[in-house]
Amino acid sequence: MTTTVAAYAAPAAKAPLERTTIERREVGEFDVLIDIKFAGICHSDIHQAREGWGEAIFPIVPGHEIAGVVEAVGSGVTKFAVGDRVGVGCMVDSCGECENCKAGTEQFCLKGNVPTYNGLDKNGEPTYGGYSEKIVVDEKYTVRIPDGLSLDVAAPLLCAGITTYSPLKHWNAGPGKKVAVVGLGGLGHMGVKIAHALGAEVTVLSQSLRKKDDGLKLGADHYYATSDPKTFEELAGTFDIVLSTVSAPLDFGAYLSLLKTGGALVNVGAPEEPIALNLFSLIAGNKTLAGSMIGGIAETQEMLDFCAEHGLGSEIELIDASEINEAYERVLASDVRYRFVIDTATI
Amino acid sequence: MTTTVAAYAAPAAKAPLERTTIERREVGEFDVLIDIKFAGICHSDIHQAREGWGEAIFPIVPGHEIAGVVEAVGSGVTKFAVGDRVGVGCMVDSCGECENCKAGTEQFCLKGNVPTYNGLDKNGEPTYGGYSEKIVVDEKYTVRIPDGLSLDVAAPLLCAGITTYSPLKHWNAGPGKKVAVVGLGGLGHMGVKIAHALGAEVTVLSQSLRKKDDGLKLGADHYYATSDPKTFEELAGTFDIVLSTVSAPLDFGAYLSLLKTGGALVNVGAPEEPIALNLFSLIAGNKTLAGSMIGGIAETQEMLDFCAEHGLGSEIELIDASEINEAYERVLASDVRYRFVIDTATI
Repeated sequence: MTTTVAAYAAPAAKAPLERTTIERREVGEFDVLIDIKFAGICHSDIHQAREGWGEAIFPIVPGHEIAGVVEAVGSGVTKFAVGDRVGVGCMVDSCGECENCKAGTEQFCLKGNVPTYNGLDKNGEPTYGGYSEKIVVDEKYTVRIPDGLSLDVAAPLLCAGITTYSPLKHWNAGPGKKVAVVGLGGLGHMGVKIAHALGAEVTVLSQSLRKKDDGLKLGADHYYATSDPKTFEELAGTFDIVLSTVSAPLDFGAYLSLLKTGGALVNVGAPEEPIALNLFSLIAGNKTLAGSMIGGIAETQEMLDFCAEHGLGSEIELIDASEINEAYERVLASDVRYRFVIDTATI
Repeated sequence: MTTTVAAYAAPAAKAPLERTTIERREVGEFDVLIDIKFAGICHSDIHQAREGWGEAIFPIVPGHEIAGVVEAVGSGVTKFAVGDRVGVGCMVDSCGECENCKAGTEQFCLKGNVPTYNGLDKNGEPTYGGYSEKIVVDEKYTVRIPDGLSLDVAAPLLCAGITTYSPLKHWNAGPGKKVAVVGLGGLGHMGVKIAHALGAEVTVLSQSLRKKDDGLKLGADHYYATSDPKTFEELAGTFDIVLSTVSAPLDFGAYLSLLKTGGALVNVGAPEEPIALNLFSLIAGNKTLAGSMIGGIAETQEMLDFCAEHGLGSEIELIDASEINEAYERVLASDVRYRFVIDTATI
């Protein structure tokens, strides 16, 4: 028996989001029914709702930064019990059998993962995201939110947290390492917090010094304006890792020059247009330009445990569901410190 | 007291190389005087002699793939004795004190290394390379050629060998790994031999199947033509490492699509013009685009020991010094299997 739940959806690409109802599937043997408490607004919600990344499935209910409480469990569920605090991120299913799924990188499932919204599940039914009252998810794609984390500040970790944690870990951010975070937005502010908690020396590279006080409070040791050409002179050859969280087209040669020998520039936000790159800027210094996309389920759990241990939540602006459309405009104007989170009780 | 030795030099950028004489410095306390037996011809010799990479110092005596025998040693020399078989690669000095020198990556000396030719040494004197009878080099920048390697086939290892060995090791080529080598020239043929000896499954990606028999003999398990679009369909998602040794502008998106999740495309030959790159081709799959430039002195010794242990020399065409100019034209036409080596007794 399906469950009818209230949700906010865009009925078409150019239309504002509005209140509607959707059906959630019956709770299957290995499913959990989650009473959603909070849902973060990620920039990619806007890209998808407005078809900036190609055709979408309408109505679209965005939201892949979901925090809530388990309300019911299927008969085969072993990981969770009613009342558990849980989260759901960018995917709700994958094949579970391919090389990547077995390696714990389900986001790269060779058969394609099932995205939390704007996708089709294994039965061909559209998936609907977190801007809704409840969701039914296979326990394998559900993670535990540790007691130390409030659900509201935990929600954005399911995308912004794992997106920055995974590359920082992979490229060995830690004590003795110098990490630059480019851009201090939803992703960047978590990058700063996590890199600092990992023990690295953290520098924010932002267009201006407008958010400098915030950056230092979040854990940055240094803060530079990239609009000042002296920044690139002064910081040449400084960093082990540069984590770029921006989607503006950067001068990649200039950012690569900030790396030490053997350093890595990792992109998690990326321009839609191709970039121009002189390969000598990689060869001279054995440097690396890398990409990274969210993280697998086990790593997402590891990230949540790490954030709880270090008291790291997202900095949020809590909004009512009726404010979603306004929030979208403010995200596009970079006018949010640092993540909008919807109180789903207001849907 | 300096020593006058015969050499082949280009007197100016557009001039052919001709026989001349140069002065070698007095053998200092920590120097070795090397009786050069063989010198490889590297594509970069031509770039520099013809000022393709910017202004050069004339007369220019190219050659940074040097194999010879120690003829005299300074009073403080401890690593070598008269009669030892030795090699010299792309650099003959560095500061020895910076972070990179201390880390064994002298090629990235923060004060700039002293290149074997077309550079200025610490006294401001021009350096002259291996197309000559003898050379005087600080023992620290001299490596031992193990007995198992003939000097003629060892010479090209000093550049082509280390250029491919270093990234293959760094990116973990070995048993269970699939490595593609793009281009089967001076660098590529050593890449195939070394990757195979490291235990990887090796595929050559060449423009045509013209050299297929050679490739398989050199140690490749598979050989594909990149001019056939089916190659890219068939090999999508196959490789842990793609080592590009070509300087032609590749379609990097296409080559990145050949990588597995988490794979690395490493460039050691690079186009002079900037490439266009869509960063999503890195993000989707946590992929890496990296550069690599030769290797440090200790790693060069490690490479020579590895090559001796596995019986890996370069495939060479031995020429007389009088044939250098003709050889340059043949290198530019990719008409060499796989490295020209000058018999310096003919200078």
